[in-house]
Amino acid sequence: MSDSDQRETSRTLDPKYDDRGLLSAVVVDSATKDVLMVAFMNAEALQATLESGEAHFYSRSRDTLWKKGETSGNILKVDEIQVDCDQDAFVLYCSPAGPTCHTGARSCFYRVVEGRTLQPVKT
Amino acid sequence: MSDSDQRETSRTLDPKYDDRGLLSAVVVDSATKDVLMVAFMNAEALQATLESGEAHFYSRSRDTLWKKGETSGNILKVDEIQVDCDQDAFVLYCSPAGPTCHTGARSCFYRVVEGRTLQPVKT
Repeated sequence: MSDSDQRETSRTLDPKYDDRGLLSAVVVDSATKDVLMVAFMNAEALQATLESGEAHFYSRSRDTLWKKGETSGNILKVDEIQVDCDQDAFVLYCSPAGPTCHTGARSCFYRVVEGRTLQPVKT
Repeated sequence: MSDSDQRETSRTLDPKYDDRGLLSAVVVDSATKDVLMVAFMNAEALQATLESGEAHFYSRSRDTLWKKGETSGNILKVDEIQVDCDQDAFVLYCSPAGPTCHTGARSCFYRVVEGRTLQPVKT
């Protein structure tokens, strides 16, 4: 089997990082199934998340490991992690300690695209 | 205001592409709120999605625009698009015409991470 086929059928975690050493991470609220944020993880961030049970990411702008809520206190407790077919994307089902977005919004996705304009998400 | 602040508060679509010209796209099933797949879009893919109402992505491996379901018929009809605070990630709420994953699974996320092993998602 190719590496690709193995990743799809495997029962072993074998994350596929891109040429920058990153993969995609989507945070979903365990209670509401709303998407709260989208970020990137490197191997260190994934490892820290798996070990601590709290979401860690990689900041591309700051080039550093980043624990969500480290300064704000709004950590994301990880309830379940799902991985996609080719193991280059993860969904983290989380219980958030507070607003996930740095703007204070519950979710980073607070606007709907309508043509070229943005409208508040209906709640 | 900085570009960053403007993107957060703006009512105008102003996608923020990374240095490869890409942004993240998460596909969520409108009916179940399950995450179906995670991919990337370039400006062309986002434009094609907005114009056609069907999900288009950018394939990093093939370096080309890619309409989901073009060969399989399993297109993703876009019901709503949400954008995040800094406009570098989109959530597409879609009605899928068939299985989204190329493996035939309904979702690309068919395995749960448990330690270093993967288990089938409970349905």
